[in-house]
Amino acid sequence: MSKRRQLHLNAFLRNVGQHEAAWRLPETRIASVTDIQHYRNLAKIAEKGRLDAIFFADHPVLKDRAQDRPWDSLDPFTLIAALSGVTERIGLVATASTTYNDPYGLARRFATLDHVSRGRAAWNAVTTANAAAAANFSLGHHPDPDARYERAAEFLDIVNRLWDSWDDDAIVGDKDGGTFVDPNGIHRLDHHGKHFDVAGPLEVPRSPQGRPVVFQAGSSEPGKDLAARFAEAIFTAQPVLDEAQAFYADVKSRVRAYGRDPARVHILPGLSTFIGGTEAEAKELQETFENLTLPTYGLAQLQRVTGIDYSSHDLDDVVRVPSRGEVASDMKSRHDLVHHLTSTETVTLRQLLRRLSAGRGHRIATGTPDQIAETIIHWFENGAADGFNLIPPALPTSLESFVEHVVPILQRRGVFRTEYEGTTLREHLGLDRPNVTRASRPFVAAAE
Amino acid sequence: MSKRRQLHLNAFLRNVGQHEAAWRLPETRIASVTDIQHYRNLAKIAEKGRLDAIFFADHPVLKDRAQDRPWDSLDPFTLIAALSGVTERIGLVATASTTYNDPYGLARRFATLDHVSRGRAAWNAVTTANAAAAANFSLGHHPDPDARYERAAEFLDIVNRLWDSWDDDAIVGDKDGGTFVDPNGIHRLDHHGKHFDVAGPLEVPRSPQGRPVVFQAGSSEPGKDLAARFAEAIFTAQPVLDEAQAFYADVKSRVRAYGRDPARVHILPGLSTFIGGTEAEAKELQETFENLTLPTYGLAQLQRVTGIDYSSHDLDDVVRVPSRGEVASDMKSRHDLVHHLTSTETVTLRQLLRRLSAGRGHRIATGTPDQIAETIIHWFENGAADGFNLIPPALPTSLESFVEHVVPILQRRGVFRTEYEGTTLREHLGLDRPNVTRASRPFVAAAE
Repeated sequence: MSKRRQLHLNAFLRNVGQHEAAWRLPETRIASVTDIQHYRNLAKIAEKGRLDAIFFADHPVLKDRAQDRPWDSLDPFTLIAALSGVTERIGLVATASTTYNDPYGLARRFATLDHVSRGRAAWNAVTTANAAAAANFSLGHHPDPDARYERAAEFLDIVNRLWDSWDDDAIVGDKDGGTFVDPNGIHRLDHHGKHFDVAGPLEVPRSPQGRPVVFQAGSSEPGKDLAARFAEAIFTAQPVLDEAQAFYADVKSRVRAYGRDPARVHILPGLSTFIGGTEAEAKELQETFENLTLPTYGLAQLQRVTGIDYSSHDLDDVVRVPSRGEVASDMKSRHDLVHHLTSTETVTLRQLLRRLSAGRGHRIATGTPDQIAETIIHWFENGAADGFNLIPPALPTSLESFVEHVVPILQRRGVFRTEYEGTTLREHLGLDRPNVTRASRPFVAAAE
Repeated sequence: MSKRRQLHLNAFLRNVGQHEAAWRLPETRIASVTDIQHYRNLAKIAEKGRLDAIFFADHPVLKDRAQDRPWDSLDPFTLIAALSGVTERIGLVATASTTYNDPYGLARRFATLDHVSRGRAAWNAVTTANAAAAANFSLGHHPDPDARYERAAEFLDIVNRLWDSWDDDAIVGDKDGGTFVDPNGIHRLDHHGKHFDVAGPLEVPRSPQGRPVVFQAGSSEPGKDLAARFAEAIFTAQPVLDEAQAFYADVKSRVRAYGRDPARVHILPGLSTFIGGTEAEAKELQETFENLTLPTYGLAQLQRVTGIDYSSHDLDDVVRVPSRGEVASDMKSRHDLVHHLTSTETVTLRQLLRRLSAGRGHRIATGTPDQIAETIIHWFENGAADGFNLIPPALPTSLESFVEHVVPILQRRGVFRTEYEGTTLREHLGLDRPNVTRASRPFVAAAE
């Protein structure tokens, strides 16, 4: 490549911040949790920082211990659709579940978002880890991971084909001849699979990006396989450099095995940053958050990840979380992280809960802007990351701090854009637009 | 009432216009079909006219004869969410199907839209008439009307209860005490019904309107019954005054029978207007549209409504469409309208297709601004309508013309607002906000 490889940065925005105690900070406005003005402000800060995208999680069920903290309480798709109207360039990523949606409805919504945002839409495909969601969707039980990923693969295949069901040049618009579209440019799927029957075509004409960008999150074996087949960017929790490098190498080789270009599949670990003028200030900032944590919440989360109830344990006793083989868990990657942490370090239960409070398994960088930029570039240049999903501990403050102090360093170092060069998210991410024209597929059956 | 009864007007926006030939007019921009700038412009024109709401149809399947005209090709929910960011006061109504959605996902999206639009969201609940949709949603066949309406009633009941699952005052935000919400203010449904099992609660806190406004469209017997039970506004096709009066009286009495206040359920027939400086100019305008119609399209639509293929008939022969008893049809109200028209008037097939081209069964008013205002007020004051869903034949021109020329007359006559008095759609429609507080329901089970 003639041009230097560029870092990709998204802002992963969880209402008033990822940190469980962010809402208890004096400066946090409680009303922000559901206030569109708060999210508009965040989107504009991220766009000012020239980030690739803003990114929202999906929780189709009220989380445990709602009394202990706000969580992602707004539907992420609706939120990014609303934010499309008040932003110009930044990408818009919403998470949505393949277990609790149908492929036609989802393909239709994201294709429409790609039109109304003028090419900035992306779908982060997940299978939903929280088993409690099943009870909201008339399902007797939450499917096991293999069943979820089998359905997800069929789902993604259908969605891609629905997005491809209109040729780029299907709209003819011949007023005199009375032909609005060429019906030979619109293609049925007539898909009949194990999980779905979908005739198609979509009723949405081909969207600006050809297809919305597909993200994937989930680092289990079937998750990595799904990502290698379908994803164009991968969101993963990687707190440790060497494991991040192993994950990176593993996924890129799986991508290659599927005949896809590894340079066109970006791996973006999560990164929470506590930024200070000095290292001591940054640590003090992180402690401010940790001092406000509620053990009830941390214990419930730990139980969710490990399946073990630690609420009767003394918070000051050393804790060692057993490996997955010994307990039931549906959050494999998170469980492994906690097991690893308590096996390689001696920590009390209280210390563990504090450690987990900021990132919930994601990489945490605490330090000066230079130190944080250094960490980012080190991972970027050493086969651990193509960029990061930034997970600000508190919002808007942690995002403002990153954009104001860290982004300029990354720009000076030549690894991050100073202006958007394109208008679509595909262009920001350096991903080719998939083109389909009547000429490119002459043999397919017409819609009518 | 101390204040004079006010008219309610929505703009029903179908891409470049309701009229099947609108896209062929010289001034129509073909790219507008998927261009957000076009829809932003329409929303702003409607808001400038102080209309109650903009309103979008739903077609979860590509319509027949796509080559003959553009149709509602963007997902309506995504579109109104995007438009929420560029409007301030006007209500936002999206149609969505109870047959091809799930209640939890839909309740969550509309509750979120109510937050991000600050109280302007409404859902127009339909059961979807187009049988072809079934093939996009893994359903072997489109359910018959009774089955669809049975599911719809359960669906609406669940959605209302999900919207009510957070008390208005559930968010406590006690930073010092470490209590974000009062769990006693959040209520599970644990619904187990014939069609759905939904545990709840919603993860979305109570929205600005309490509940988004519920519209209903569909004038069959089960449709009227559903409307009487659940709807706060009803969209109906009523081309003839005396039948509109009968419909109005019938629905209002059904509303009363369900113990609801008929004054809080607005009946809004569709209205397409061709506006001219003189009556002759208006008729000429309508003829301009009719001269551009394509018989292939009209014949396909007539077949869809009646089940009868007239394509081998001579366009200049007189046609009489049999009544419903004699043929199969899933669009009962539309069929009855066509039967009525061809039974009470002598029309050729060509004339019938031209007559149907503008309104597809809706009331058409062709004349000067004064004549159109007179028609509106006449229906409004004579028990036929509480207002209208305006269905502009061409967009933006027909909407601009209505806002510029007819709205000022209605304002001078004292039946339509000159400024928005409230900020929410409920306030525009004069509907009370349903309030639920911890005190108002002390006996329900807590979420945890």
